Amino acid sequence: MIAEQTLTEQYLRVRTHSEAICRGLETEDYVVQPIVDSSPPKWHLGHTTWFWETFILVPNLPGYRIFHDDFSFVFNSYYESVGKRVLRTDRGNLSRPTVAAIYAYRAYVDEQMGRFLDTSDISSELLALIQLGLNHEQQHQELLITDIKYILGHNPLFPAIEIPLHVHEHIAGRENIRINEGVYPIGYAGTGFCFDNELNPHNVYLNDTLLAGNLVTNGDYMAFIDAGGYRQFRHWLSDGWAWVKANQIQAPLYWHQIDGQWWHYTFDGLQPVAADEPVCHISHYEADAYARWRGQRLPTEFEWEAAASQCNWGQRWEWTNSAYLPYPGFITAEGAVGEYNGKFMSGQMVLRGASVATPDGHSRLTYRNFFQPDKRWQFTGIRLAMSV
Amino acid sequence: MIAEQTLTEQYLRVRTHSEAICRGLETEDYVVQPIVDSSPPKWHLGHTTWFWETFILVPNLPGYRIFHDDFSFVFNSYYESVGKRVLRTDRGNLSRPTVAAIYAYRAYVDEQMGRFLDTSDISSELLALIQLGLNHEQQHQELLITDIKYILGHNPLFPAIEIPLHVHEHIAGRENIRINEGVYPIGYAGTGFCFDNELNPHNVYLNDTLLAGNLVTNGDYMAFIDAGGYRQFRHWLSDGWAWVKANQIQAPLYWHQIDGQWWHYTFDGLQPVAADEPVCHISHYEADAYARWRGQRLPTEFEWEAAASQCNWGQRWEWTNSAYLPYPGFITAEGAVGEYNGKFMSGQMVLRGASVATPDGHSRLTYRNFFQPDKRWQFTGIRLAMSV
Amino acid sequence: MIAEQTLTEQYLRVRTHSEAICRGLETEDYVVQPIVDSSPPKWHLGHTTWFWETFILVPNLPGYRIFHDDFSFVFNSYYESVGKRVLRTDRGNLSRPTVAAIYAYRAYVDEQMGRFLDTSDISSELLALIQLGLNHEQQHQELLITDIKYILGHNPLFPAIEIPLHVHEHIAGRENIRINEGVYPIGYAGTGFCFDNELNPHNVYLNDTLLAGNLVTNGDYMAFIDAGGYRQFRHWLSDGWAWVKANQIQAPLYWHQIDGQWWHYTFDGLQPVAADEPVCHISHYEADAYARWRGQRLPTEFEWEAAASQCNWGQRWEWTNSAYLPYPGFITAEGAVGEYNGKFMSGQMVLRGASVATPDGHSRLTYRNFFQPDKRWQFTGIRLAMSV
Amino acid sequence: MIAEQTLTEQYLRVRTHSEAICRGLETEDYVVQPIVDSSPPKWHLGHTTWFWETFILVPNLPGYRIFHDDFSFVFNSYYESVGKRVLRTDRGNLSRPTVAAIYAYRAYVDEQMGRFLDTSDISSELLALIQLGLNHEQQHQELLITDIKYILGHNPLFPAIEIPLHVHEHIAGRENIRINEGVYPIGYAGTGFCFDNELNPHNVYLNDTLLAGNLVTNGDYMAFIDAGGYRQFRHWLSDGWAWVKANQIQAPLYWHQIDGQWWHYTFDGLQPVAADEPVCHISHYEADAYARWRGQRLPTEFEWEAAASQCNWGQRWEWTNSAYLPYPGFITAEGAVGEYNGKFMSGQMVLRGASVATPDGHSRLTYRNFFQPDKRWQFTGIRLAMSV
Repeated sequence: MIAEQTLTEQYLRVRTHSEAICRGLETEDYVVQPIVDSSPPKWHLGHTTWFWETFILVPNLPGYRIFHDDFSFVFNSYYESVGKRVLRTDRGNLSRPTVAAIYAYRAYVDEQMGRFLDTSDISSELLALIQLGLNHEQQHQELLITDIKYILGHNPLFPAIEIPLHVHEHIAGRENIRINEGVYPIGYAGTGFCFDNELNPHNVYLNDTLLAGNLVTNGDYMAFIDAGGYRQFRHWLSDGWAWVKANQIQAPLYWHQIDGQWWHYTFDGLQPVAADEPVCHISHYEADAYARWRGQRLPTEFEWEAAASQCNWGQRWEWTNSAYLPYPGFITAEGAVGEYNGKFMSGQMVLRGASVATPDGHSRLTYRNFFQPDKRWQFTGIRLAMSV
Repeated sequence: MIAEQTLTEQYLRVRTHSEAICRGLETEDYVVQPIVDSSPPKWHLGHTTWFWETFILVPNLPGYRIFHDDFSFVFNSYYESVGKRVLRTDRGNLSRPTVAAIYAYRAYVDEQMGRFLDTSDISSELLALIQLGLNHEQQHQELLITDIKYILGHNPLFPAIEIPLHVHEHIAGRENIRINEGVYPIGYAGTGFCFDNELNPHNVYLNDTLLAGNLVTNGDYMAFIDAGGYRQFRHWLSDGWAWVKANQIQAPLYWHQIDGQWWHYTFDGLQPVAADEPVCHISHYEADAYARWRGQRLPTEFEWEAAASQCNWGQRWEWTNSAYLPYPGFITAEGAVGEYNGKFMSGQMVLRGASVATPDGHSRLTYRNFFQPDKRWQFTGIRLAMSV
Repeated sequence: MIAEQTLTEQYLRVRTHSEAICRGLETEDYVVQPIVDSSPPKWHLGHTTWFWETFILVPNLPGYRIFHDDFSFVFNSYYESVGKRVLRTDRGNLSRPTVAAIYAYRAYVDEQMGRFLDTSDISSELLALIQLGLNHEQQHQELLITDIKYILGHNPLFPAIEIPLHVHEHIAGRENIRINEGVYPIGYAGTGFCFDNELNPHNVYLNDTLLAGNLVTNGDYMAFIDAGGYRQFRHWLSDGWAWVKANQIQAPLYWHQIDGQWWHYTFDGLQPVAADEPVCHISHYEADAYARWRGQRLPTEFEWEAAASQCNWGQRWEWTNSAYLPYPGFITAEGAVGEYNGKFMSGQMVLRGASVATPDGHSRLTYRNFFQPDKRWQFTGIRLAMSV
Repeated sequence: MIAEQTLTEQYLRVRTHSEAICRGLETEDYVVQPIVDSSPPKWHLGHTTWFWETFILVPNLPGYRIFHDDFSFVFNSYYESVGKRVLRTDRGNLSRPTVAAIYAYRAYVDEQMGRFLDTSDISSELLALIQLGLNHEQQHQELLITDIKYILGHNPLFPAIEIPLHVHEHIAGRENIRINEGVYPIGYAGTGFCFDNELNPHNVYLNDTLLAGNLVTNGDYMAFIDAGGYRQFRHWLSDGWAWVKANQIQAPLYWHQIDGQWWHYTFDGLQPVAADEPVCHISHYEADAYARWRGQRLPTEFEWEAAASQCNWGQRWEWTNSAYLPYPGFITAEGAVGEYNGKFMSGQMVLRGASVATPDGHSRLTYRNFFQPDKRWQFTGIRLAMSV
């Protein structure tokens, strides 16, 4: 339980960080949406603010006046309960509200939230909702970074930009991690915040398994490319092979081969690919194909969690071979907040760990990230596993 | 181990059954392919024959002459190892080879197979491949039935046709089945035939669960429709809701509302929907939405298997909420046969049990059927579960 | 005016010819529809019959009983006035009515039409409608041939088949045809049958023009291919270049390069391309690009008509550079028959002449055929023109 | 011939006007591209500048240094001769170059152009190219206005903005214009600038025709809507009816029915539709359907030109029923400039006149505008015609 007097500080720290991420952007960078998976940065700034306005201020702050009638329409994401939303594909077509108007919206809501948090008696139920809001905004902070990278990394000018990342030193040569056959506890069993998808804590039965101590590096992955990995169907899931062919995939996202050398877009512009860094921006299909090519496999999310404390983690979201499905006893919350996680439990794969773009203190050993298996604009990587 | 002298009989029994299914068809019915999921009946008859020719006769029968040079091109399905295949979407555009030519192909291959099986010393490795071929043809027998139903059920004349089905008497009023928390064995541990996806046998940990003793009936499902189930997003997975809206789904496949009454296409033509029969031809999305609307859920495939011996099963393939993924220690076989199952372990959900269209003796308690969650042209139904 | 006693003969001659075209087909060939532009042969046989039943027998033969309630639904093509039609893309999915049922339908309607024509007093208005019906069936005869060619020419077995064609001897070396500047009469001014799109007869003003005396040959066209014509955007209309790239067009339809030689599918199976025959199965885009590459252009339909009597025509439909638009004073007829031509006067180009597949006596010097500029499954060719 | 000393002034006047149009935009408004037909305003500003740099400065100004290496890639539109272009659909995804960078690009090129025009000996050939550049920029000025309207008119906030338009007073009650049968001269026969598509001047033969003296008004068009015009296929071209159904068209672009009243988006925000103003933002399909519903037709471009001096024109681009095709003797220029018009002569309809968004002095009686028949984001209207 967090003491109520620090909640305002906590709120402001999270809110400020969203804006800090955008500090280096040009106004134009806030507006575009090059793929439907991403959102314009200004939309993230507006949507996270809309969350506070809609779920905290409107129902709880007497006399609160909403900032602008149309913003609810513009900044709803996927909460079908809360009225008609702008189709996701249209977000990049909206020049208005302007970036300045959205910053004004943020300032207004922050001021009202400050007033509310300072003066109100926050019930434990409301506290839980506020903590959800903080974690929600942190998730959008990571999306802000990945979407900005997509926007600038697909611009022919490959602009450099200052973005706050948590780059950890990569330590090679770690030993494999052994999991012994038996029953293991899975899921969040603590008293702090967790997402509903981490519940209920429950047991799973695991078999003897080895998990790699190190993530697969760019150098490792180049060997797969050089060996024709993208041209041989036998390494690939059927859907993955269709994806490779339909999209003519030949390398991780952001990689470009120039005069025989691999370069990739980073926030410092186009840079040579460093062979000893963990490979990044790959799809589940690629992670799975790489593992097969090595005669190994991806870990399940349960194997990962059982071994998590021994992983040097935090550099890449690690694809597992577990589908994103409910834990035993999972319950969907009532109302709009119930749309947060449960309805996405179809067609997606679980990623574990955290990445250089994950905000401080946001992830947990039991945290379940999830994306469709073809997505690769997140900071995703590979840890190998094998049954023994 | 099956005695070699009965293998020929076993082979001929399976082969004959494929043709028996088609006995009532007009020549024209063999040709068309109304959706990409289905195949023309003549293609099934040719493809199963191609399997025997390609994997048994060509490599094992000295001096065997293939029936027709181009048939390999036409009748390969998805074995990328075995050369260029006809795109699945093109199958319904091929008027040649004619139905008569395909029956001649079958007769030729059957004769050669008979000669081969009668006179050869069959190694245990080859025996396993023959058993795979028999099970492969049985799987296509079920697809033949479902594809014929799709072809005739989407024809404005709704023709009746004689098709051999295993309709079991439906017994209502069975008690719920209780699973107690603990470790359960899963997967095929016998000595007979099983598919590679049923291996390895292994333990899973289950929690206290109740499985419904009866399948959901048409009458139950009509209540969901009447309550607006197809119009309320809150019951649906996000992908499911998108599917409902994009395809304007309002009822199970083959259902038509005429003057306020529900009718459905059956092999006897258009018939009134019987309220007390198990609901059929629904997608995973619909099964999941129905279960949520009831405040329950679908079982996992492991819960199902733990309770399987107490289920009255064999009427409907039962959607589970398990994604189709490899068991611990799963190994993809070398060569083309290795493409049988493993490469499809992405984006599909497991169904358990069997249906009225499943050939005798084909299924097992450990059998894992699988389809994408939007598919509903198979004979699919719902068993509810709940955590307790 | 045709004497009434010969009308029955005329009717039966046209009807019999439709069936004669199909004499060499296997039942399966009647069923498929490999592209949306084409229709299954059995559909053509049914649809032309439906025309007689719907527009002649039902309104004019007292006591006439329609053959089958659902055939109107199945065999309507695009007459929106006459009720719900089967979507064109679905035609190839209909295994029923069977081919035999459609031949029975033809026999029944022919018998009733014979009875009607023999015993009725045919008004001049009705006679005009019957003549429209005969010409309508003749148009479908040409489509039958081109659709059969598409079906068999896209089958990997390239089957040969007996089809009645009007192949004329190709005479090379004809002199160019000169048109002198001035006013020319255009459109049908006779007293026999013509389509509404040939009316009204009117004047156009033409400039000095030369039309080629010969059609472009396969040999001519190979030179265009060899010169990289399909790889250089500068010869192409913008839409044409997009079409070339999207469909990876590299040669006329049905052409295959095998060991450096050009072969093409014909009703005799795969045959070497003869250099001295007129090029066939090309789109307007290709015809236009070829003409530009030669520094010339396509004629307008008015130039063609002014020179028509000097053309050796009847081998290929000749693409003009005229859009299909109404003549001055064009009037759309009332009712369903009014949907025959006028509503298609958008997005199509006019072709003039006739082809080897056009029935005897069907075309005229004023006849206007029309297709979208990307279509090439008709027997289409090129005559060059140049302003002088 | 324009005296060389005034060419600089002329250049600067045109260039300044492009920027004047954008004066009221927010930075964000410059960036988005809501439909593929439109382009982001900043792209128009950059592309017109690229034209001067590429076609005038680079080949003609010794020592000219291009502003930025990548701009050629970003701002090429459809000149395939001049290297790889950014796909039109991607333009709205480019946040960089920024608006400020593009204005700097304009300033740099304007300065260099000023220097060039002031000091160089301009050949008549180069003068023609400069005049093409001026007219090209004027065409983009109209597109800037229509694209800005599309961007703001599809924003849920419907923002008002200051945009310079040439709104003429609408004078009702003009008499019909009569064209007598005979030969008429068509095309540009003067000595000033014209586009290549206006050449050669030539004769056409016209029939007796009446052209309406007034454009169809909003009030007229509402009667068509009220009479069910959008729900009755019989008024529509086949392609038009497919377009109505596929896009659920029910009114002109920008119209919204609110509480039974028609409103439309204008640069003053959402405003009531004035019944006595000429209808605007309709497709060729709608214009054609309206005319049929009235028992009339659209004029051909030749009828229009013959009557042009008597039209009160300049409010709406008037759809004709002429396809956009070459005039007799039309010649495509060599090189990139040859891609300007000729390659678009397929699949488009001619519009004549000018609109409130056309720059002063840009249009002519012989001017041929052209768009695909479904396009309606231009300021398009209807003038009726009838054969007499």
